[in-house]
Amino acid sequence: MKLQVDTDRAIADLRALARFGQLEKGVNRRALSADDIEARRWLETRMQQAGLQTTIDEVGTLSGRTPDCERYILIGSHTDTVPKGGWLDGSMGVIFGLEIARSWMALSSTPSIGIEVLSFSDEEGRFGGLMGSGVYVGQQTAAAARALRAEDGKTLAEEVDRAGWSSTPALSLNEQKHCAYFEAHIEQGPILETEGTRIGVVTEIVGVERMRIEFNGRAEHAGTIPMAMRQDASAAVFSFAHEFVQMCREEGGPNTVWNLGHAEFEPGAFNVVCGHAVLYVEYRDGDPKILQRIRESIGELVIEAGARHRVSFDTYQQMRTEPAIMDEKLMTMIEGAAHDCGTTSKRMPSGAGHDAMLIAPRIPTAMLFVPSIDGRSHDVSEDTSVDDIALGLTVLAGAVEGCLIV
Amino acid sequence: MKLQVDTDRAIADLRALARFGQLEKGVNRRALSADDIEARRWLETRMQQAGLQTTIDEVGTLSGRTPDCERYILIGSHTDTVPKGGWLDGSMGVIFGLEIARSWMALSSTPSIGIEVLSFSDEEGRFGGLMGSGVYVGQQTAAAARALRAEDGKTLAEEVDRAGWSSTPALSLNEQKHCAYFEAHIEQGPILETEGTRIGVVTEIVGVERMRIEFNGRAEHAGTIPMAMRQDASAAVFSFAHEFVQMCREEGGPNTVWNLGHAEFEPGAFNVVCGHAVLYVEYRDGDPKILQRIRESIGELVIEAGARHRVSFDTYQQMRTEPAIMDEKLMTMIEGAAHDCGTTSKRMPSGAGHDAMLIAPRIPTAMLFVPSIDGRSHDVSEDTSVDDIALGLTVLAGAVEGCLIV
Repeated sequence: MKLQVDTDRAIADLRALARFGQLEKGVNRRALSADDIEARRWLETRMQQAGLQTTIDEVGTLSGRTPDCERYILIGSHTDTVPKGGWLDGSMGVIFGLEIARSWMALSSTPSIGIEVLSFSDEEGRFGGLMGSGVYVGQQTAAAARALRAEDGKTLAEEVDRAGWSSTPALSLNEQKHCAYFEAHIEQGPILETEGTRIGVVTEIVGVERMRIEFNGRAEHAGTIPMAMRQDASAAVFSFAHEFVQMCREEGGPNTVWNLGHAEFEPGAFNVVCGHAVLYVEYRDGDPKILQRIRESIGELVIEAGARHRVSFDTYQQMRTEPAIMDEKLMTMIEGAAHDCGTTSKRMPSGAGHDAMLIAPRIPTAMLFVPSIDGRSHDVSEDTSVDDIALGLTVLAGAVEGCLIV
Repeated sequence: MKLQVDTDRAIADLRALARFGQLEKGVNRRALSADDIEARRWLETRMQQAGLQTTIDEVGTLSGRTPDCERYILIGSHTDTVPKGGWLDGSMGVIFGLEIARSWMALSSTPSIGIEVLSFSDEEGRFGGLMGSGVYVGQQTAAAARALRAEDGKTLAEEVDRAGWSSTPALSLNEQKHCAYFEAHIEQGPILETEGTRIGVVTEIVGVERMRIEFNGRAEHAGTIPMAMRQDASAAVFSFAHEFVQMCREEGGPNTVWNLGHAEFEPGAFNVVCGHAVLYVEYRDGDPKILQRIRESIGELVIEAGARHRVSFDTYQQMRTEPAIMDEKLMTMIEGAAHDCGTTSKRMPSGAGHDAMLIAPRIPTAMLFVPSIDGRSHDVSEDTSVDDIALGLTVLAGAVEGCLIV
């Protein structure tokens, strides 16, 4: 037995998929938009042409299975994009699944384990990040997801109704039936390219924590109030930000990343002391102990900054995901397949979240990265060389084949 | 000779003026709005009732003079307000002028020096801060001022046309004719109230400098890019802000104030490294040497922050006014008048800008402050006790009388 993937055919499918919502070199295809619905219909047809049995469920997640198998290896990702996103983020992992399932269908001897390809709905969060995979693993009910509302005011249910998929019950993960999950993805960072390695083997998907920190002071004239009498909310943000960075350097590990990507100030003028300020804080690491140390230190630093600037404060946790550990056996299979292809691989954490993070706690899960040119993603300029895409597909197929034989 | 001001009458006039654009306890009367035009017409009528000769010029500045004098003492301020402003900021100084001119008109023996009351147009900057006094001293031409456009798209010329004042040439300062300028104002800060002093004698109006500092980095995924490879514009803002505050503490004097009242971040998200950030920087002091040291240090700190975070930068000077020194002789007259009223006074800088700052370089100028309750201004809650308003008027009248006799 040998899965014979056709890398040219897969890349042609990727290019065809990228025409739905095409924007310059990239794609603007938010979940359940008209373009996304059309793209799902096209993908479903493509699966059916390969002989797969397809389902699109009440939240928009699309599945294509090789027929009549008792157990399945899941391969997938998502085909929705961020606004003005790239052509590979998500789509590559789904098309790899399609191509591997197609090559499975062409085998002369049919293995007892089948392939199920998944395109999870709304990974990028038009309604809610990781929505489709969240419903798939039972993190939230389909009914709750369908009530989610996008920024444009539309509910998920309205959009799925429009596509005519609302009557199909949500697909769900079944540990008895689903024996492994593979997700191939672009790295979305510069590490593989910088090091000249073509295959990344993800060890864990980092935990992400987000907080909104609000300081409430008193807006007043910035010329007439002596410094020592101000209750300055922006000054609290600036001094907290400085302490936060120092603390992350001390408490963080070698892979810890953090971001102070946004802040808001009211009333927001040259000549008015800021009365209300909000800082957006995010930090990521694969080690729950590091995340805990940072979380606790933030609590202390907020109290100090509030006292220093005579302002009150509130801290809102916006998100907290646990690190998701990838399966050692599957990682070894990807490494072996890379070796068989004559290339090296690098074990690395994923700093970005993926559908795999919700599936990993339930069944053996692995992720494979291919290099991102110039480390770019979530932008129309996102790209990966055709050779690297083809290599990624071949390596993934090798790893999946290892599972089929086992 | 003795100027007999009627403090009750003046306070009644202040309350009547506050009805134009009244908002809760305060006033919303932006320059050349319908309410402001109505208020100016009412004030002109009130001046005429007192026997003053009035003019409203092509930028909206209103003057009322005691008739037939060769030389004048100017007394004034402004009657426009910030959005949702207070009832005293500006208006009090104008009504004090009206009351003193009225009491001048009632004198049995007429002194050779008259009183001219001025309500400068648009001090608060609907079209441009200190617009009316700027035209009055020739800092900008009336034609240039009339071309200024408000945020709502209207030009000053359009609004003045509507009021029917466009054919009256702009009033202007004349050193031969105008021998002094007095401006009474609320303190807009907490110092007098905190110290229990009822009269402030302004020594200088501080110089104000404003800069917009922009950092340009690279927006990218905040999970996948290692910290050391980021070009993080918000990180540059936060580290500059920290260094700026340390520097102001070292380079500033005891009265130096600074404000980082606003900043903007793009794209502005938890999970995207900031690609473009803007920080609003303001600092004030009465000493030009301190202002210069801070200005030069900012230049160095911006370069350092840019290098530290691998981002480019631009610095835009938005405003720069020189400190304006008040006249020693007039200050002494205010102090003497306060003493005659049985109260103490405090010499202090004005941290806020006033029309007086443009007039001070040309003719002897003085400012008198009354306490602001809870230090508040530029807000509907702004207030001063009736006793303090009355005392301020009596002291100002005493100081003006000193000039009339001299």
